[in-house]
Amino acid sequence: MLQISERGLQMPPSPIRKLVPYAEAAKKKGIKVYHLNIGQPDIETPPAIMDAVRKADIKVLEYSHSAGNESYRKKLVEYYKRVGIHVDHTQIMITAGGSEAIIFGFMSCLNPGDEIIIPEPFYANYNGFAVMAGVRVVPITSYIDQGFALPPIEDFEKVITPRTRGIVVCSPNNPTGYLYSRQEMEALRDICLKHNLYLFSDEAYREFCYSGTYVSAMHLEGMEEHVVLMDTISKRYSACGARIGAFVTKNRKVYDVAMKFAQARLSPPGLAQIMGEAAVDLPGDYFNKPRTEYLNRRNLLVKRLNAMPDVYCPNPGGAFYAIARLPIDDSDKFCQWLLESFSFKNQTVMLAPATGFYGTPGLGKNEVRLAYVLNLEAIDAAMDCLEEALKVYPGRR
Amino acid sequence: MLQISERGLQMPPSPIRKLVPYAEAAKKKGIKVYHLNIGQPDIETPPAIMDAVRKADIKVLEYSHSAGNESYRKKLVEYYKRVGIHVDHTQIMITAGGSEAIIFGFMSCLNPGDEIIIPEPFYANYNGFAVMAGVRVVPITSYIDQGFALPPIEDFEKVITPRTRGIVVCSPNNPTGYLYSRQEMEALRDICLKHNLYLFSDEAYREFCYSGTYVSAMHLEGMEEHVVLMDTISKRYSACGARIGAFVTKNRKVYDVAMKFAQARLSPPGLAQIMGEAAVDLPGDYFNKPRTEYLNRRNLLVKRLNAMPDVYCPNPGGAFYAIARLPIDDSDKFCQWLLESFSFKNQTVMLAPATGFYGTPGLGKNEVRLAYVLNLEAIDAAMDCLEEALKVYPGRR
Repeated sequence: MLQISERGLQMPPSPIRKLVPYAEAAKKKGIKVYHLNIGQPDIETPPAIMDAVRKADIKVLEYSHSAGNESYRKKLVEYYKRVGIHVDHTQIMITAGGSEAIIFGFMSCLNPGDEIIIPEPFYANYNGFAVMAGVRVVPITSYIDQGFALPPIEDFEKVITPRTRGIVVCSPNNPTGYLYSRQEMEALRDICLKHNLYLFSDEAYREFCYSGTYVSAMHLEGMEEHVVLMDTISKRYSACGARIGAFVTKNRKVYDVAMKFAQARLSPPGLAQIMGEAAVDLPGDYFNKPRTEYLNRRNLLVKRLNAMPDVYCPNPGGAFYAIARLPIDDSDKFCQWLLESFSFKNQTVMLAPATGFYGTPGLGKNEVRLAYVLNLEAIDAAMDCLEEALKVYPGRR
Repeated sequence: MLQISERGLQMPPSPIRKLVPYAEAAKKKGIKVYHLNIGQPDIETPPAIMDAVRKADIKVLEYSHSAGNESYRKKLVEYYKRVGIHVDHTQIMITAGGSEAIIFGFMSCLNPGDEIIIPEPFYANYNGFAVMAGVRVVPITSYIDQGFALPPIEDFEKVITPRTRGIVVCSPNNPTGYLYSRQEMEALRDICLKHNLYLFSDEAYREFCYSGTYVSAMHLEGMEEHVVLMDTISKRYSACGARIGAFVTKNRKVYDVAMKFAQARLSPPGLAQIMGEAAVDLPGDYFNKPRTEYLNRRNLLVKRLNAMPDVYCPNPGGAFYAIARLPIDDSDKFCQWLLESFSFKNQTVMLAPATGFYGTPGLGKNEVRLAYVLNLEAIDAAMDCLEEALKVYPGRR
């Protein structure tokens, strides 16, 4: 027998994608499935940025600079300035999606056996990137009854060990939609400074804040050496398939090391960098429309959920996700049942069991994540399905 | 002090790119630099595949399947059939360049501390990917006087340990241009079967063979479970900046594990997959023109090199690289000197010191790699520069 690697065996399968075969089977039976399970928005990719690629005069599609086209990085300096982040283009590295930025961060800063603390529930793929780097994820729990606010600092202090090297924060948050306040971000700063930790900050959703003010890890004073920002155009411009992200840090040593990983893979995707660069020149009010759209969707979704008996959904301050507590025995079973055994008016809804977003086994069993990436009509219809489903689900509690 | 990871420190800087600042300085002085240092061809990217992107009707640039668009994978089945490789689309995974295919291969099959054997000189970035996976590269030397033929099997046997897990082969080879014969590929098969090793096969250059017949690792009987093919459209269609490759294996367990890494990073670049898919429909004689062009360039380059006193360059059978032995003290110094202190008719040439392609310290000191990616006129002018340079280089031996 040929060996399969330990990390390959440890690598978790995608909790979001594991239900896909059931969704496909439902569709084959002629059932319409509303996809609230995955952060793939239906918002149009701005035609202007698609046109930029169409009009690009390319004779030879050459390798770009390993850090990405300088022209794009210089444009991003302008973009970041608008959101109060002051960096220069030598502190920005273009990556294959936000995913590669996370990989570069973990690979550059962390050794096998090191620990990183992440408030749970968290974006499930952090687990995979941690496995790639041989790093142990230490979850600390945030609770739905507190709206998934930052756990108290004492909870961080309790789990810090000599192997702790960093904290991962995502605000506005996937999967909870929670928007961290300035006070909470400053609490994270204090603990990072006290224990000499990196703050890995995933800010994929910064444009979509509905209540409260977005605070970047890059806004925190005294954290210049500690912050590794992991960014992407995927959600910002509804361009998930482009695979363009950014790794941003003022820590020169970290940047230079990450650059060696970037050089090994030669360059980030070429055509999509043109999209990213053109996006910075979109009109200043570009985000108003998608933001308003998401806000209306959130309002509808949260209202519909909280109107269902024994269902609770805190009102998320940003991103386009919400986690709801349902009166069910097991969210994995329930989400599968929705696809396999249920339909209402020949329709059903696909949700993500929240179990996949917790590091602590057993948590999230009565919670699901909903991505409000579909239009109002679809969300309403999906909520009709969920409401009916909860009435007849055999595992109702 | 915040920690920099061990692997980040071990990560080798790109041996090809480290001379870039000297080239930039030369250009600032008004000197024309012929870039024979890097595998970036001047061949036009087929306009038909660029047009496929321009004409694509995309409203929302969505995530693709984590394994890549099914339509593209099915097209690739046709492509592979033409080169005698019989796979189905569930054995193909689309990656961000060949680089990601190599990372997936190493991450899925190898544990930290495992060893892989690679005939040297070899593509330098294998080192970087090995560092990412915590794997030790064990080089065995091939020699310029044998034209960089496969080292004898006894050399492999000598370095095999209980930690040896695989062999990496690249044919036609980067950096030597050597094309492995059927006999040599079968020798690799025998050793892999005998010692239960993976054969990681990098076949980025299969279309460019000038003498002898291309033999894929996938052509070897009895190796279905052992072969991991790492492929890319970068060189095939002169589309290096697209960042589209493929990970291909008939080993279902390896594929399924690699799929978990693919899911963690969500999907490969979207726009460039359209290019790759369109490329399969290029006319059947598409490769004749670039192949003939490269052949003519090789013939000129090798002839010019061997006409210089005390210079020796074996005639490479494929790819678009050659390694030449020069009468010099130190190829790193020489290549830097070419950019920093030399010009002929206000021109100079940028070469890659071969030291960066050897795993054994001290080897390659009197060798350089030349990529014949420029047109005949440019190659001729670059050879004029090299000929003059060797006459006046202070470190001549």
